[in-house]
Amino acid sequence: MSFKLTVLGANSALPTSDKFSTAQLLQVAGRSFLLDCAEGTQMQLRKNRVNFESIRGIFITHLHGDHIFGIFGLLSSFNLLGRRNHLSLFGPKGIKSIINNFFISFDVKLNFTFEITEIQTNDCLEIYRDKAVSVSAVALLHRIETYGYIFRESLKDRNIRKEAIIKYSIPLNEIHKIKKGADFIADDGSVINNADLTVQNTKSSTYAFITDTAYNENIIKHIKSVDVLYHEATFLEQFADRAKETFHSTARQAATIAKQAQVGKLLLGHYSARTPQIEKFKAEAIEIFLNTECATDGTTLEF
Amino acid sequence: MSFKLTVLGANSALPTSDKFSTAQLLQVAGRSFLLDCAEGTQMQLRKNRVNFESIRGIFITHLHGDHIFGIFGLLSSFNLLGRRNHLSLFGPKGIKSIINNFFISFDVKLNFTFEITEIQTNDCLEIYRDKAVSVSAVALLHRIETYGYIFRESLKDRNIRKEAIIKYSIPLNEIHKIKKGADFIADDGSVINNADLTVQNTKSSTYAFITDTAYNENIIKHIKSVDVLYHEATFLEQFADRAKETFHSTARQAATIAKQAQVGKLLLGHYSARTPQIEKFKAEAIEIFLNTECATDGTTLEF
Repeated sequence: MSFKLTVLGANSALPTSDKFSTAQLLQVAGRSFLLDCAEGTQMQLRKNRVNFESIRGIFITHLHGDHIFGIFGLLSSFNLLGRRNHLSLFGPKGIKSIINNFFISFDVKLNFTFEITEIQTNDCLEIYRDKAVSVSAVALLHRIETYGYIFRESLKDRNIRKEAIIKYSIPLNEIHKIKKGADFIADDGSVINNADLTVQNTKSSTYAFITDTAYNENIIKHIKSVDVLYHEATFLEQFADRAKETFHSTARQAATIAKQAQVGKLLLGHYSARTPQIEKFKAEAIEIFLNTECATDGTTLEF
Repeated sequence: MSFKLTVLGANSALPTSDKFSTAQLLQVAGRSFLLDCAEGTQMQLRKNRVNFESIRGIFITHLHGDHIFGIFGLLSSFNLLGRRNHLSLFGPKGIKSIINNFFISFDVKLNFTFEITEIQTNDCLEIYRDKAVSVSAVALLHRIETYGYIFRESLKDRNIRKEAIIKYSIPLNEIHKIKKGADFIADDGSVINNADLTVQNTKSSTYAFITDTAYNENIIKHIKSVDVLYHEATFLEQFADRAKETFHSTARQAATIAKQAQVGKLLLGHYSARTPQIEKFKAEAIEIFLNTECATDGTTLEF
């Protein structure tokens, strides 16, 4: 359990009085990453008692309002609250000019360092890495340039076996290197293989955030075996024509991707207002992929 | 009771998990007018079950985010929901380029007619008139160009006295004109003065929306005797220095304006986060002006 995911909004284009459009927070090792930033995201962050300073990166999938309109208020509040931490923003081409226009129009002068990266890939590209995670952007199939994001926890140190420390008289100052994978050279010059000294730690967590997109098998190889896949399910299969027309997916299509990618769990969201009963999305998906859950505002998963 | 006012948000710059920044709705004769449009306004409108089509005009006081960041989502939702009614937007210089940049950046093509008016006055100017109301903008004293708005219900028809209809044998087709104030010419050519035929209807309602501003006595003559005055009270008097520095008002200053303008009722709002107990704003104001109420999200007044 290294990732904590909080769904801040799971509606599609139209928010309601109590259902927000797309935003999610992924927390790992004391830092947070925001995935999309619909109108009201800052209120949802407060509702979930998120420390604003902990947010290191914001990843915007595409430039439709229901995925980005909350960024203006969020950046303003960061500034008003005296933010000090560096912030990275990622998104498709065009995001720089939107943010720069905003700074000019509202005479915003940030009191923290801020870097915007415009992503450009037709396939999959690593765009961010720190001590805790790496993030790759994967090209999706929507009406405009859109990227999904895949989060992989950085490889953890191996665990050193206590009996090996005693058997080979390993000094304290060698332990850190061995945990990182180094072999040990004993006093007599013999090399003890790392595999004989350590065991692998628990596996690293993985999360894929895939919205908005038409059914797209090209992403499967990139999201193979992730622990949790969030995949948009704007429509039920009965509206498959509408899904195709608007470059969205049905719950059945999302489940088909989950099955082929052999993911651990499927999380559905981005529901269209035309189907208010979200349990119908789950009912459709579990016929294909059993471990499916419907995201709602406030859903949290730890994995 | 011709005006219905609903407070959609009463916080100042920083919204919280359940308190929104500035937005209000004024309803009169089946139409609605939005006063400022902070982030989340569309959700607050839904919470208050407002028909989006009924909104005829949006009046933005100034271009600080906590008064306008909700407009992008609101215009987008109007469009997605197939709005047909014309919409008028008023605000200070700069609002046109903000909205036009938004249309370009997000490739928005409105399916309804939309007109933006940039206000320019150092004093007070009528900017809107329809059958139900007239609206004047009044220059305020803030860090950037800012206008308050004064709503006056259009003069109602006079009530014709039944006994006059009988006495002067007034035909049906004359009654409409007489209600509008015309004299009546009897068959014998004599002129019956309108004042002898009619009585004045109930008085027209008036509302003044004054935010954000430093203490400014220049507005008093324009808001004289309004039924309800909303006046920002960002700070308590103990923070008067901070109020002056940031071009805001204290609760005491708001009450002083209300008293001098001899308004019917004072409504306070735009509270700074540094005083979470809003009853303190009221306690301070009623020492100067008794009929004071504190606005909170959801407050409604009919007058």
